[in-house]
Amino acid sequence: MTEPGAPAGAPALAVDIGGTKLAAALVGPGGRVLAYERAATPRDVDGEGLWRTLAALLDGLVAGAGSPPLAGVGVGCGGPMAWPAAEVSPLNIPAWRGFPLRARFRGRYPGLPVRVHNDAICVAIAEHWRGAGRGRGNVLGMVVSTGVGGGLVLAGRLVDGASGNAGHIGHVIVDPDGPPCECGGRGCLEAVARGPGLAAWARDQGWRRDGPDATGVELAADARRGHPIAVAAMRRAGRALGIAIASATHLCDLEVVAVGGGLSQAGALLFDPLEEAFRAHARMDFARGVRIVPAALGQPAGLIGAAALIHAGERYWNAD
Amino acid sequence: MTEPGAPAGAPALAVDIGGTKLAAALVGPGGRVLAYERAATPRDVDGEGLWRTLAALLDGLVAGAGSPPLAGVGVGCGGPMAWPAAEVSPLNIPAWRGFPLRARFRGRYPGLPVRVHNDAICVAIAEHWRGAGRGRGNVLGMVVSTGVGGGLVLAGRLVDGASGNAGHIGHVIVDPDGPPCECGGRGCLEAVARGPGLAAWARDQGWRRDGPDATGVELAADARRGHPIAVAAMRRAGRALGIAIASATHLCDLEVVAVGGGLSQAGALLFDPLEEAFRAHARMDFARGVRIVPAALGQPAGLIGAAALIHAGERYWNAD
Repeated sequence: MTEPGAPAGAPALAVDIGGTKLAAALVGPGGRVLAYERAATPRDVDGEGLWRTLAALLDGLVAGAGSPPLAGVGVGCGGPMAWPAAEVSPLNIPAWRGFPLRARFRGRYPGLPVRVHNDAICVAIAEHWRGAGRGRGNVLGMVVSTGVGGGLVLAGRLVDGASGNAGHIGHVIVDPDGPPCECGGRGCLEAVARGPGLAAWARDQGWRRDGPDATGVELAADARRGHPIAVAAMRRAGRALGIAIASATHLCDLEVVAVGGGLSQAGALLFDPLEEAFRAHARMDFARGVRIVPAALGQPAGLIGAAALIHAGERYWNAD
Repeated sequence: MTEPGAPAGAPALAVDIGGTKLAAALVGPGGRVLAYERAATPRDVDGEGLWRTLAALLDGLVAGAGSPPLAGVGVGCGGPMAWPAAEVSPLNIPAWRGFPLRARFRGRYPGLPVRVHNDAICVAIAEHWRGAGRGRGNVLGMVVSTGVGGGLVLAGRLVDGASGNAGHIGHVIVDPDGPPCECGGRGCLEAVARGPGLAAWARDQGWRRDGPDATGVELAADARRGHPIAVAAMRRAGRALGIAIASATHLCDLEVVAVGGGLSQAGALLFDPLEEAFRAHARMDFARGVRIVPAALGQPAGLIGAAALIHAGERYWNAD
C-alpha cells in the first residue's frame, strides 16, 4: 500500500534503533533494501545528542540515495514505549526516558506518515510479510537475544493488544518456581533463555569464556564446538522455548513460529530440544501442524518490518 | 447486525449442546433471552437419536413462541470439532463422532445462516458482547468446570486462529513437570484446575465427600464451609489460573479476563489466590491494568454467545 500523495514505488525510510547500533534503510514497496547505513549507538550523550546522531545518519542515507520522495517513515525501537505516541524509554538506551520519538520524526518529516513500533514486533512483522511466515495467517515471530521479544500476527493482521504490547512471549511463564526475571516476576521464558541469563547459568555450571561479559552468541558458538556445558545451556533454553511456544500455540492456534536472534545461531543444538519440548507439551490435535522454524531474514528483519508499517499498513498498523 | 432477509428485530435461535444438557433459546438482537427450553442430554442413544431429541426440543421452543421468523441459528457445542464445517466429536458426547452438525442444521433451516462454534468460545463471546468484557477491546473469557476452556477477543473481534481453536487457555502450561493432562501433555492449566482433577487431588489429601464422583462444584461448596483441604484445593487451582492468565496477558496484552464455570462459584477462595499469583507473575507495566473478574452472565452465557454469532457476526464470525 503506497500512502496517498507518494509516487507509486516510493521507498519507505526504515529505522531500527537499538542499544548497540542505529540502522536505517530505504526499503522499496516489495520489501527490498535499496540503501543502508548504520552507526554505533553513541554512549555518554544526552537524549538530544543521540537524536542528532540519528538525524545525521538518516540525512546521509537519504542524500546518498539522491533524496527520493518517501512513502513514509517506519521505525522500530527497543521498548518499553507508550504506544502509538511512541514516547520511548528503551531499556538499553538510558539517554531516552519518555523521549517523544514519533513527535520528533513527525516534526522532521512533515506530511509523511510516521509509524513507530517495538523492535521485536518489527522483526515479527518482517517474518510475516517477507520471511518464514509469508502467506500464513497466524504467525508468532520471536527474537531470542539479550532479551526475548516477539510479535503476533493473527488472521493476517498484527495484534497490538490494549497498549501495543501484545507479543511479549518473553514473559510467558515456563517455570513458576524458576529464576527471577528482570520484570520482577519469576520463571518467565526470558529469565531462562535470554543470552545473559543463559551465560550466567553456564558460568554457574563451570563454563569459562572471557569473563562475565561473554554472551549467548559465544555460548551458542561453544555449543557448536561441542562444549558440554554450552550444549546443556542450549538444551535448557530450547526446552523453555518449546514450553512457551506450546502455550502460545494452544492459546492462539498458530501455524508458524519463526525464531530469530543471536541464540538461534546455535541451530539444531537449540531447535532439537525446543522441538522435543514442544511436541511433549503441545498435544492438542490442532497444534500438530504448527511449524517452528528459524527466522528467514536475519539482520535486516527489523528494517524490513519497520518499512512494512508503511508499505503494508493495512495489515500491520492499526493505530492513527 | 440483522441478517439480510430477516425482519428487523427477529430473534436468533440459539443452541447450547453439552454432555449433560441440551439448551435452546430465542434471543433478541440485543441479547435478551425471549424463550428458553432445556432437556437432559440422552444417554444410550445413537447419533441420530440424539439429533432427534435436539430437533424436538427446538421445534417445541419455536412453536411455543409462535413460530417467529428467525435471524439465523447460532450453536455452541463441546469440542473438538472440525471448524467451520462443525463436524463435531464432543468429548462428553460419545454418540457424535464427526457428526456433521452444521450441515444438519442447514438442512433443517434452509435459507438461514447457521453458525457453530466451540461452547467455551460462545461463553467468551457472550461475556464480551453483553457481559463482564462489554465495551473493552481485548478480553479473555474462561470456563473452569469439568474442563478448562476459553475464547479470545482481540481488537474487538473473536480470534479463531488457524483452525477455530484459539482460546484454549486450558492447555497453557503452568507447571512443566506437573500432573499429566488428558490431552497427552503435562502440567496444562486444565490438568491442575479442572474440577475432576482438583477433586482427585483433594481426595489424595484426605478429602472425603460422597465417593469418587464428587465434583469441583462440591469442592467449591466445601471450601466455602471452611474445609481445609477444599480451601487448599481452591488455592491450588487459583494459583494455576493466575499463572496461566499472566502468560496470556503478557502474550496478548489483555484488558479483562472473565472467569466463569462451576469452580468460580468458590468466589474469593478461588479469586484471591488467583489474583495473588497473577500479580506475582504479571509484572510488566502494561499488565497492571488488567481486571480479572467473575463472568457476569452465568448459565445462559453459552446461549447468548451462540446468538451473537448471528446478531453480531461482524465481530464474532470470521468464516463463511
